[in-house]
Amino acid sequence: MSGEVALIPKWLVPVVPEGLVLTDHAVVIGRHQILAILPAHELGERYPQATIERLDTHALLPGLVNAHGHSPMVLMRGLADDLPLMEWLQEHIWPTEQAFAGEAFVRAGSALAALEMLTGGTTCFNDNYFFPNITAEVVIESGIRALLGLPVMNVPTIWADSEAGYIERGLSVLDEFEGHDRIGWAWAPHAPYTVTDASFERLGDLSESMDFRLHLHLLETAGEITDSQSQYQCHPIERLVRLGLYNHRLIAAHMTQLTPEEIALTAESGVHVLHCPAANMKLASGFCPVDALDTAGVNIAIGTDGAASNNRLDMFAEMRLASLNAKGFSLNPVAAPAERSLSMATIQGAKALGLDSDIGSVEVGKQADLIAVNLDEPGTTPVHNVISHLVYTAGRHQVTDVWVAGQRCVRGREIQTMDQDSVISKAHEWASKMH
Amino acid sequence: MSGEVALIPKWLVPVVPEGLVLTDHAVVIGRHQILAILPAHELGERYPQATIERLDTHALLPGLVNAHGHSPMVLMRGLADDLPLMEWLQEHIWPTEQAFAGEAFVRAGSALAALEMLTGGTTCFNDNYFFPNITAEVVIESGIRALLGLPVMNVPTIWADSEAGYIERGLSVLDEFEGHDRIGWAWAPHAPYTVTDASFERLGDLSESMDFRLHLHLLETAGEITDSQSQYQCHPIERLVRLGLYNHRLIAAHMTQLTPEEIALTAESGVHVLHCPAANMKLASGFCPVDALDTAGVNIAIGTDGAASNNRLDMFAEMRLASLNAKGFSLNPVAAPAERSLSMATIQGAKALGLDSDIGSVEVGKQADLIAVNLDEPGTTPVHNVISHLVYTAGRHQVTDVWVAGQRCVRGREIQTMDQDSVISKAHEWASKMH
Repeated sequence: MSGEVALIPKWLVPVVPEGLVLTDHAVVIGRHQILAILPAHELGERYPQATIERLDTHALLPGLVNAHGHSPMVLMRGLADDLPLMEWLQEHIWPTEQAFAGEAFVRAGSALAALEMLTGGTTCFNDNYFFPNITAEVVIESGIRALLGLPVMNVPTIWADSEAGYIERGLSVLDEFEGHDRIGWAWAPHAPYTVTDASFERLGDLSESMDFRLHLHLLETAGEITDSQSQYQCHPIERLVRLGLYNHRLIAAHMTQLTPEEIALTAESGVHVLHCPAANMKLASGFCPVDALDTAGVNIAIGTDGAASNNRLDMFAEMRLASLNAKGFSLNPVAAPAERSLSMATIQGAKALGLDSDIGSVEVGKQADLIAVNLDEPGTTPVHNVISHLVYTAGRHQVTDVWVAGQRCVRGREIQTMDQDSVISKAHEWASKMH
Repeated sequence: MSGEVALIPKWLVPVVPEGLVLTDHAVVIGRHQILAILPAHELGERYPQATIERLDTHALLPGLVNAHGHSPMVLMRGLADDLPLMEWLQEHIWPTEQAFAGEAFVRAGSALAALEMLTGGTTCFNDNYFFPNITAEVVIESGIRALLGLPVMNVPTIWADSEAGYIERGLSVLDEFEGHDRIGWAWAPHAPYTVTDASFERLGDLSESMDFRLHLHLLETAGEITDSQSQYQCHPIERLVRLGLYNHRLIAAHMTQLTPEEIALTAESGVHVLHCPAANMKLASGFCPVDALDTAGVNIAIGTDGAASNNRLDMFAEMRLASLNAKGFSLNPVAAPAERSLSMATIQGAKALGLDSDIGSVEVGKQADLIAVNLDEPGTTPVHNVISHLVYTAGRHQVTDVWVAGQRCVRGREIQTMDQDSVISKAHEWASKMH
């Protein structure tokens, strides 16, 4: 046994270059990495010992990257819907978190989220929640990949009672954590309205010296701008520019309120936008100008946000919505075509997270983070255009097989790396407690 | 054997009254109809001979009503995306139809659409396409229910070469067709810009005398209004009012361009709106003001439109999008709450189609058009709110069992009434021909 596996899908969608669909090709994966992409007929000569796996009705593509979320919040999905952002947060989400969101909650919620994401074709997620050390353990066990945020805000919680306390606790997580190939870390100040200048400055220095991303909710609602103007006498972006934080380290979630000048500045500054179309629509927050940002050259990634405001961690639904949302709001039917939304959900997500040398596309030398999507269903018949189907038509349940860093996490729709029944029953136990 | 079947779901969502969720209840169905809804413990006494079927992890609800579509267009899904409406229509869809859309095409496409819809929980659809007589045959064979439009327009096609020709052909379809319980008919003038005043008047008279709905594309784009003003010196709604057609028989698809005065008029007139959020966003047509229409008391139904502009006939995706779209565009997070979107996709659809005395809710005496949705999946765990899950979270693949008029069309996700392999292979043959 060489240990090499050769996957021969009906269609290979490497994502880089954008729009390419290959047939009669094989992807050879080794222990962790993609070793080769070659015409299937060359396999016998070049990799004679590889175990061949045919995916005769499938598209093979890079695993999807969920660029913004709060994974343990899956335990609160459907708990409160159809409410304004602040009422939803202050009267439902925060009180529930205050009462329940400890280590065990985070463990159960992260596990359910990892299970939901892996089986739905998401192989990497960018998170921001309390107890990221616990989420890290779940990431290691489940086989998924993540960039985990160390939360910071001026709201006391079970995790810390001051901004300084949050930062210290974050640093101690890093001290105690042994490095892991599938885990990266980021600083995650919550939002401009919950983080002071002093803390932003300290996080700017820390991110710079540690080469970390700064994961921030930014311009989620219009109210944030007027609040900033009354509290800081400036626009949130102006404030971040003044603090030296409006740069390529910044990964900014939502960004629903942007002028053309701010779009240009965002492009020049190299700030990455984490677009959450479902949550922005559900909470009626506003419209992230994806078409204009894309035209300006801003790197846009796609995130589900937490399941309490989505209510799913489903990157297939989110890709589709990213295209529909961009067209619908800009009244430009050419905005966010299918191949661009697929890029946003893969390589552009990887780029935002600083992981694009390792993941986000099917390329030789990258990690074998791959998903197989079975298009042999009534709803994806016939197949005129594979990428169109992946974005507009396929559902996450059509993901049959998932590899992360070469490990087979899902086989024939069954999770291989987790005890599904136990994860689901623990989630039900938490739901009962909350009632 | 009494022939009676008692379904005992974990959750029963009758839809009428809106928002109700019952547990520990049974629905007893007879040959075609719902005979009783009762506490499960009364079943032994009242229906001792009923065959009991437990749906232990399922919600049972009325089948979904897809209120606007062009079913055979599934054969063109993904053929042309990311284009403006008129370019998409004139350079891609119409030439393809011109070349291929004959009887065999309609038979293959209608069958694929019926298969996709039934397995996805849609039990009734409202259609407008050529050869509705062929679609009727597929409806009869497949077990689904439909309101079939008799198309009329001033564009020559294989179906007819003049408006008068379309109307004659429609009348002859009705003459030849033997009545069927699961099939209703409507007149389907295409749109104000493709139908003359004379034909509208004739269709108004025919609809009135035959008690038919008038199924029309209306205000799909802003261009339609300026065109009408230059051609007819009035707004399309003004024109329909003048022609005596703006009334409860009119089921108007799209309606993306409405002033507050027109919304009030629509409510007063009893016109039904067939909302197609995915197609309107994908083609960047504009925004149907669901929140304002709903507040004004207009009956709104939900449709997928054809699969060439969606690209799925998926009422679960469409319900979710109806809520997200209404909130996102109106910037009102309370707009189109989950229970309202579920009503729009069921009882309000039935009402639009004039079928609400027979279908659209789980009520005694109505037809047994029922679907079971399995919520025991990672993505719908835990269950705080069943209706929220049905709208925001569940996917169509979670539909496990479907009954139409008491007939079991889908059992354990497998279609019972059609030869799935044959339907899919015929669709692939058509796709090959088109390439």
